[in-house]
Amino acid sequence: MHVLITGAAGMIGRKLLDRLSLDGGLNGKAIDQLTLTDIVPPAAPQGLCGNVTLRTADLATPGVAEDLVKDRPDVIFHLAAIPSGGSETDFEAGYRSNLDGTRNLLEAIRKTGDGYKPKVIYTSSIAVYGAPFPPSIPDDFVLTPLTSYGAHKVICETLLADYNRRGFLEGVGVRLCGITVRPGKPNLAASGFYSGIIREPLAGIETTLPVAESVTNTHASPRAAAGFLVHAASLTPEQLGHRINMTMPGVCCTVGEQLEALRRVAGDAVARRVKHKPDPFIMKIVEGWPSRFDCTRARELGFTAETSFDEIIRVHIEDDLGGKFVQ
Amino acid sequence: MHVLITGAAGMIGRKLLDRLSLDGGLNGKAIDQLTLTDIVPPAAPQGLCGNVTLRTADLATPGVAEDLVKDRPDVIFHLAAIPSGGSETDFEAGYRSNLDGTRNLLEAIRKTGDGYKPKVIYTSSIAVYGAPFPPSIPDDFVLTPLTSYGAHKVICETLLADYNRRGFLEGVGVRLCGITVRPGKPNLAASGFYSGIIREPLAGIETTLPVAESVTNTHASPRAAAGFLVHAASLTPEQLGHRINMTMPGVCCTVGEQLEALRRVAGDAVARRVKHKPDPFIMKIVEGWPSRFDCTRARELGFTAETSFDEIIRVHIEDDLGGKFVQ
Repeated sequence: MHVLITGAAGMIGRKLLDRLSLDGGLNGKAIDQLTLTDIVPPAAPQGLCGNVTLRTADLATPGVAEDLVKDRPDVIFHLAAIPSGGSETDFEAGYRSNLDGTRNLLEAIRKTGDGYKPKVIYTSSIAVYGAPFPPSIPDDFVLTPLTSYGAHKVICETLLADYNRRGFLEGVGVRLCGITVRPGKPNLAASGFYSGIIREPLAGIETTLPVAESVTNTHASPRAAAGFLVHAASLTPEQLGHRINMTMPGVCCTVGEQLEALRRVAGDAVARRVKHKPDPFIMKIVEGWPSRFDCTRARELGFTAETSFDEIIRVHIEDDLGGKFVQ
Repeated sequence: MHVLITGAAGMIGRKLLDRLSLDGGLNGKAIDQLTLTDIVPPAAPQGLCGNVTLRTADLATPGVAEDLVKDRPDVIFHLAAIPSGGSETDFEAGYRSNLDGTRNLLEAIRKTGDGYKPKVIYTSSIAVYGAPFPPSIPDDFVLTPLTSYGAHKVICETLLADYNRRGFLEGVGVRLCGITVRPGKPNLAASGFYSGIIREPLAGIETTLPVAESVTNTHASPRAAAGFLVHAASLTPEQLGHRINMTMPGVCCTVGEQLEALRRVAGDAVARRVKHKPDPFIMKIVEGWPSRFDCTRARELGFTAETSFDEIIRVHIEDDLGGKFVQ
């Protein structure tokens, strides 16, 4: 099996590679060819024995997508994207990467013709939704994004579904909720605190909580996110029907419940490293985000996430901290 | 005021021109410059006294959109599109016209910069919706089109809303339901019978009804469609908020009720010119279409259609038949 991963150098890409290495393949088959691409050099994965090709390239550049597709990968995980903040500050770069890049990939697949029909797993986002929201967002809720990034996701989901319906590929759009705990350094994303209030205290570092403890969000671990992608690749067109884009499950909880979970899992001393420091700017942004989703369809199709925030914290300690944290 | 109309040679374009002529302007202002464009030569309108420019051009051709926008039209009615059937049979032509053409127009507006911020009224379609449907489609129902044409409409609505949110233009997306009675010759569209069973009998011609009398659809007249566009141009950003794309109202009725209305308005002899001839192919297509919409938001914003199918028939007789029909 030949697997292509775009955005392979990103956090989700690396977690997916870990998962493929752990499984020793995909859909029960060995991966004998793996192509990794990103705009920054992707790292060769540990523990996969197939033939690995690393490509530093931009899908929005003419010819790149054709070149990536010419060896006919069986499964394509299309993760590459300029995230929310970057798409908002640089309008042109966002559209170029997220819309033109994706369209180039889909067109390269279509133009291959000759019966070529890969599975294409696309990472979308709950940014497809825009306020006002019902208390819990049903699977058939309208798509009215309030960021350019969310607009790119709606557009590419719609392209994917049309290319799927026309028989050019077998697509699944996997809308990720909050991915927590993100490993690595704090970043400037307005959502950064959701991970920061867990990651920093576990590393022995004080951090601030900029919003009220009542703020609610839906979380899944990076390990669960990789699991969604792998599971998506196992689904058949018969199982999926026409509505191939769907919101993934997660643990819906308040920030206060996140902190209680931290106290249970890591103790009082760790939890006390989070200081309350309200930031009206971040509070305002977070207010406009959706927080709770029905995810009925994804659950029926067998997508699973953690069942408690305690579990999400334990996954971070296991996967990113080697089982240890600063007491 | 300078008004630009794309797709000006089409049926809706011509009805819009009739309406602008009747009103003697738009939003209470005289139209001193009118630019009409289409891929076939548009006709100069009767009764508008401003400076009229006719352009036969394809928005998907590089440079065309920039050229149309360089004189800074205040209001742009963007009606140009390859319809449903054509977009399904020619995948590339559909995307080129409906997606690339629209994006070129939006980009030409954005790149003008310098405070230029026109009103852009975009004709979308209920083709943005895909089965399965609830009994009546609410304003916040998900967009999962089942045609490429519907996909183009979702994508362009999403682009329009993002360009609107970013302040490059003031957009309104007007989702049209069934436009009935379409004047002119019968066409090959699967939906053609909705107009055909009224238009042909009134012209003294026998016609066939390919579906059961219980089939339900929502209709507005071409005159009402022109009214939606003119009303959309009068709305302020404050009235519209972020959800600028919305489904227009209409008369929801069965085919049987259409025929009863024909009998009431034009008499038994006219109504008897419709012969039942079930066509399983058309029945199957029509089954997958949405038939009933809440349209709460559009009604609250003051969009109005006819209130009975009798009225829709009378509008056709007045506007397209000079007040007369074949008894």
